[in-house]
Amino acid sequence: MDTATTSCSSIDLAALLSSSSNSTSSLAAAAFLCSQISNISNKLSDTTYAVDNTYLLFSAYLAFAMQLGFAMLCAGSVRAKNTMNIMLTNVLDAAAGAISYYLFGFAFAFGTPSNGFIGRHHSFFALSSYPENSGSDFSFFLYQWAFAIAAAGITSGSIAERTQFVAYLIYSTFLTGFVYPTVSHWFWSTDGWASASRSDNNLLFGSGAIDFAGSGVVHMVGGIAGLWGALVEGPRIGRFDRSGRSVALRGHSASLVVLGTFLLWFGWYGFNPGSFLTILKGYDKSRPYYGQWSAVGRTAVTTTLSGCTSALTTLFSRRLLAGHWNVIDVCNGLLGGFAAITSGCAVVEPWAAIVCGFVASWVLIGFNLLAKKYKYDDPLEAAQLHGGCGGWGLVFTGLFATKRYVNEVYIGDRPYGLLMGGGGKLLAAQIVQIIVIVGWVTVTMGPLFYGLHKMNLLRISAEDEMAGMDMTRHGGFAYAYNDEDDVSTKPWGHLAGKVEPTSRSSTPTPTLTV
Amino acid sequence: MDTATTSCSSIDLAALLSSSSNSTSSLAAAAFLCSQISNISNKLSDTTYAVDNTYLLFSAYLAFAMQLGFAMLCAGSVRAKNTMNIMLTNVLDAAAGAISYYLFGFAFAFGTPSNGFIGRHHSFFALSSYPENSGSDFSFFLYQWAFAIAAAGITSGSIAERTQFVAYLIYSTFLTGFVYPTVSHWFWSTDGWASASRSDNNLLFGSGAIDFAGSGVVHMVGGIAGLWGALVEGPRIGRFDRSGRSVALRGHSASLVVLGTFLLWFGWYGFNPGSFLTILKGYDKSRPYYGQWSAVGRTAVTTTLSGCTSALTTLFSRRLLAGHWNVIDVCNGLLGGFAAITSGCAVVEPWAAIVCGFVASWVLIGFNLLAKKYKYDDPLEAAQLHGGCGGWGLVFTGLFATKRYVNEVYIGDRPYGLLMGGGGKLLAAQIVQIIVIVGWVTVTMGPLFYGLHKMNLLRISAEDEMAGMDMTRHGGFAYAYNDEDDVSTKPWGHLAGKVEPTSRSSTPTPTLTV
Amino acid sequence: MDTATTSCSSIDLAALLSSSSNSTSSLAAAAFLCSQISNISNKLSDTTYAVDNTYLLFSAYLAFAMQLGFAMLCAGSVRAKNTMNIMLTNVLDAAAGAISYYLFGFAFAFGTPSNGFIGRHHSFFALSSYPENSGSDFSFFLYQWAFAIAAAGITSGSIAERTQFVAYLIYSTFLTGFVYPTVSHWFWSTDGWASASRSDNNLLFGSGAIDFAGSGVVHMVGGIAGLWGALVEGPRIGRFDRSGRSVALRGHSASLVVLGTFLLWFGWYGFNPGSFLTILKGYDKSRPYYGQWSAVGRTAVTTTLSGCTSALTTLFSRRLLAGHWNVIDVCNGLLGGFAAITSGCAVVEPWAAIVCGFVASWVLIGFNLLAKKYKYDDPLEAAQLHGGCGGWGLVFTGLFATKRYVNEVYIGDRPYGLLMGGGGKLLAAQIVQIIVIVGWVTVTMGPLFYGLHKMNLLRISAEDEMAGMDMTRHGGFAYAYNDEDDVSTKPWGHLAGKVEPTSRSSTPTPTLTV
Repeated sequence: MDTATTSCSSIDLAALLSSSSNSTSSLAAAAFLCSQISNISNKLSDTTYAVDNTYLLFSAYLAFAMQLGFAMLCAGSVRAKNTMNIMLTNVLDAAAGAISYYLFGFAFAFGTPSNGFIGRHHSFFALSSYPENSGSDFSFFLYQWAFAIAAAGITSGSIAERTQFVAYLIYSTFLTGFVYPTVSHWFWSTDGWASASRSDNNLLFGSGAIDFAGSGVVHMVGGIAGLWGALVEGPRIGRFDRSGRSVALRGHSASLVVLGTFLLWFGWYGFNPGSFLTILKGYDKSRPYYGQWSAVGRTAVTTTLSGCTSALTTLFSRRLLAGHWNVIDVCNGLLGGFAAITSGCAVVEPWAAIVCGFVASWVLIGFNLLAKKYKYDDPLEAAQLHGGCGGWGLVFTGLFATKRYVNEVYIGDRPYGLLMGGGGKLLAAQIVQIIVIVGWVTVTMGPLFYGLHKMNLLRISAEDEMAGMDMTRHGGFAYAYNDEDDVSTKPWGHLAGKVEPTSRSSTPTPTLTV
Repeated sequence: MDTATTSCSSIDLAALLSSSSNSTSSLAAAAFLCSQISNISNKLSDTTYAVDNTYLLFSAYLAFAMQLGFAMLCAGSVRAKNTMNIMLTNVLDAAAGAISYYLFGFAFAFGTPSNGFIGRHHSFFALSSYPENSGSDFSFFLYQWAFAIAAAGITSGSIAERTQFVAYLIYSTFLTGFVYPTVSHWFWSTDGWASASRSDNNLLFGSGAIDFAGSGVVHMVGGIAGLWGALVEGPRIGRFDRSGRSVALRGHSASLVVLGTFLLWFGWYGFNPGSFLTILKGYDKSRPYYGQWSAVGRTAVTTTLSGCTSALTTLFSRRLLAGHWNVIDVCNGLLGGFAAITSGCAVVEPWAAIVCGFVASWVLIGFNLLAKKYKYDDPLEAAQLHGGCGGWGLVFTGLFATKRYVNEVYIGDRPYGLLMGGGGKLLAAQIVQIIVIVGWVTVTMGPLFYGLHKMNLLRISAEDEMAGMDMTRHGGFAYAYNDEDDVSTKPWGHLAGKVEPTSRSSTPTPTLTV
Repeated sequence: MDTATTSCSSIDLAALLSSSSNSTSSLAAAAFLCSQISNISNKLSDTTYAVDNTYLLFSAYLAFAMQLGFAMLCAGSVRAKNTMNIMLTNVLDAAAGAISYYLFGFAFAFGTPSNGFIGRHHSFFALSSYPENSGSDFSFFLYQWAFAIAAAGITSGSIAERTQFVAYLIYSTFLTGFVYPTVSHWFWSTDGWASASRSDNNLLFGSGAIDFAGSGVVHMVGGIAGLWGALVEGPRIGRFDRSGRSVALRGHSASLVVLGTFLLWFGWYGFNPGSFLTILKGYDKSRPYYGQWSAVGRTAVTTTLSGCTSALTTLFSRRLLAGHWNVIDVCNGLLGGFAAITSGCAVVEPWAAIVCGFVASWVLIGFNLLAKKYKYDDPLEAAQLHGGCGGWGLVFTGLFATKRYVNEVYIGDRPYGLLMGGGGKLLAAQIVQIIVIVGWVTVTMGPLFYGLHKMNLLRISAEDEMAGMDMTRHGGFAYAYNDEDDVSTKPWGHLAGKVEPTSRSSTPTPTLTV
């Protein structure tokens, strides 16, 4: 390690200083001292970059772990016969998302300089000359990619168990590569028209919308996209019976649901506190040793408190409404509390996070009742949870953001929460955000899903749906707890130990017999 | 990033120095130099805070991941019919624990200034004016919360498969909000009567108890609480047959057990090395570049070696005793080795960690034999493992703590391990710790469990126990590997695709038919 | 926190400077200034160590998480009846590996000063006087241990479902304790004969082999060892039918496979970017604020892009070849892309990583066709994936390594990729690496497996193989989704609720009845 930045010889320096009425010598003394200080200053800059990149990279890894959380949550929430299908979509969110975000999504979102609507600077496409002179680094790309794939992951939950795989590939690429990056440009880029971080201070309502880690940008976008997908597709077969009553189509593994929920919780510590992007930044020179590290910690605490309050509220309210203590409901409540606090996590007090979570629980319960009433079927409750609680989160920030935290995190004297005495400007910006996200996702994803539907590319056949997609499309059932020798125990037992096709042979798709 | 802390102009400085026999000019030169140095010094302080908070926050995230580990370990270790129940308790440990620890637990533990028995400074309740002037930050709160919920998680294992959910909510809140915080105050707060970190140097036996990451504070507290719960409840139905022989009630998924164990291992790297709280601290000015970062790494190594030694010892000893190579036993052995080294991990040599793990394995085997003899039923072996091996860990530290490491980690010249030539004072303090933890948990949790028992709030009915709590209390079975269409394959198949109650309808609890 | 490194009194300093024509006073001024600068310099060094150790430790934790990924991937890929067996081998890789790597593996690999073939400095055995004066720290030991156990984990996949547990213990200790450390000495130690980091600049072909994170050192070693094990053992019963056609013996849980794959992905961010070992290092003094932190981020990006490209390529090519969208194949493709980029991840452009992943997918498909043709049975495709794609990765680096990145990461002006205009020297060194790894692993592991085979210690009996190792060797089946009361549903139901042997009783092994 090149740690020895300086070596200071006091005898040499003394010789220079003692004769420093002589100007040559004083120049040498000054050069010596300045060189020392300059070395130190450079080393400090290097240190800052190293610390901030370490912070952002590990935050990105945690945020990426949410994709694993989604995969397990989704897998556990669908019926066993569609497990392979949903997990494949989750793997591909990450994989296809990496390629499309690398090629153009990142440039659409953050390519700068650009206009307020969409990023477009050439050096960002395929990272062609990124990160040089960009002010950010590869860690930022990785972090933003982890966010982009989260949006697509949310949507896949809404349309689970009935969607053609090809339709999935199409909408997922479109969402990750264009729809989502555009929204993130509006609210997060320094050029975005509604961004609270606009570099030119020409802020929407003098404020800009505060969506710190993406209740709107990520969760609402994913949720509203899912809403349109699920609406166009209609409910799964059997989800509502002949007399229109709701029939629970229970997921096949509560263990996977809990595993996925905890992994999402774990990953949310990368998602929310990580959204500061840096941690080494002092805030207030008059107050010693106070800076972004404290705000980062506070953000982790508000995130925790909101989710936990929402989980507890859901536990007791569902006990009253449904008569049992239900871990699946508690998991969804927890995630609703996280989705809601994601917007304001950095700018509210811990006690306000408890308010946020409490309301989020009821928002989710309310939207679920609405969904049941209107026979909307969303296997993961994704539209209700990410769309509904995400929307509440934006309003919450407009109400509870504190002056001090807004000024520290977004810099400068600006509007803050209505209930905290900050006037209605921030709230207005938040409501504009809700409206434009609903509008934008509707006009982009709505027609896409409708077009796929019209081309018969969206929904699978009723036969496939009854049999399950794993058997018909994905090469077999996800589980084999009995030995394949023992073929009698399963209807599809004779397929389990199947002879593999010789490569390039003709009829590879297994015939379905159920 | 505000990296440019200083800019040094050697020409300007030279002008100042060259005329520095003139006192005005020399004051200007000095002011210039001091301002430079002061800027640098401030930036270094900011850097220290950023590095230490990054370290502590990510350690907290890892320690939180242990809760996921507990959930999976517990789920896999119980029978399938109680999976939803145990996982719900694990989610609620974290969620309810966050609220109670936020409201008062944290203040009881670390609210300072306070007395030696319990913390109580008003600014810590509900973080009302924390962290201002507290010397710590939000990251510390988050880290300590992750520890508090671990204790409750241990206890839930001991009383699994037979405890009413309401009882769970009561004891868990009491344990996380009061019993555990009190103990952590005694041994970890700067005011604690037996703390090795007391600020006034009025140390117990001139030493204080060294429980670096909580073999006693966390593991024994959770384990002894579980012991009393399980003793009051008695064994599960069928655990001992009519002639009193032990009957294994095997958990339903070894995969979940291994998953949980590895996640606990992963999280332990946040738990043990993270307990340093900071990493940027030089130890010895005479030895260049030696500091806490090295001690942190050593702690990760001792943790690893103790767990691994215990796993291997258990593998071979169980092969001899039980006749097969058992992965579940190896997992428990591993965790026992971790629980034991948790006290001394920071102050012993790597070779001593191997001794620690070797003995821990036999301690666990011994306590398991005792449990069998006295018909004590603990589905997770939690009392034996966390209580027994945790207790051994405290003794181990009193025997093997080295002079150098104790002096570096706890500062000052003080007693160390008996076998290392450090006298018996540390060992005495360790034994006092064991005694007071057993005593305190017994007088608090014992009456609580007994009271719940007397009020018929503790144990579920025999019918519910036979049927499993998931069907009777938690809305259904955790798994559905066969399609719900195919109702014939399960006794409860007719419930699987059940019609959901319309909200607020009257009879939501599914009738049990088994 | 000891943050106050300096306090600068400008009045005192001015007094010293103003009289600095007086040599005593000038000496005092110089002493004062030098002391300040020296304090700052020391604090900067401390900071560097703290940052780099934080970075390396958390990278080590992530790399360790890969062992959990392997465990879940392996468990899901074998039949249910062998789940306990394979998971036990994965736990033991980590546990036994820790002891053998601590005792001698680490010294063989990095004990320095030493010769080019094997490390041997006494202070490294059992960390006897490590890390003093070693230039590295405990974090480095932990990190290298995580790598060592990965190699053994790969091998266990190849020989799954048919290997005696004793054989496993023998080869695993030999591989982790001797075969692997030797190879890592050759290519990664500063003394290694083919290392690109040789301290004396006497580099192989003036270049040394560039295997940044171990496509060869870890993946090929594990894969080739597995190849020999699987070849000596022969295929599992039923893997090829009487007419020689390949019969898929499907793993029992796709959920575990996906879980394991994502965990490996997560852990790979510790494995590849972490291999820089440090992050606080400026590269180019003329270009401000550019250093290792950027290279670390770039490495995370190239890793991501290679894996994702390989996953997508595999998705579409397998759709063409096999007729369905297969998540298991996509997972293997993803891992193949990671194994390939592991060699060159730090020295290639992001676009080149896409080339790497694209080819890796076809390499895996090709080796799988070869394996089928020659009736080679590898339950995890480990030899094909880690051996094949790992080998391609070494070639890829010889073709695509860029001048700038090679010079930054390995320091000095040296050969780089053939297709990037860097001549053939690096490629030659890479090919030498492939040859010597294949040779070395063959001459060490080949005879070992053959000897075990001759002594009847390698393969289990046909009866055990049909019944599954869990029932015959590991104390029971891994899963019990039906209550153990309900013994009728499983052929081994009568064993599930079995009476435990009293300790030290005579006949503990359950009799097998299937």
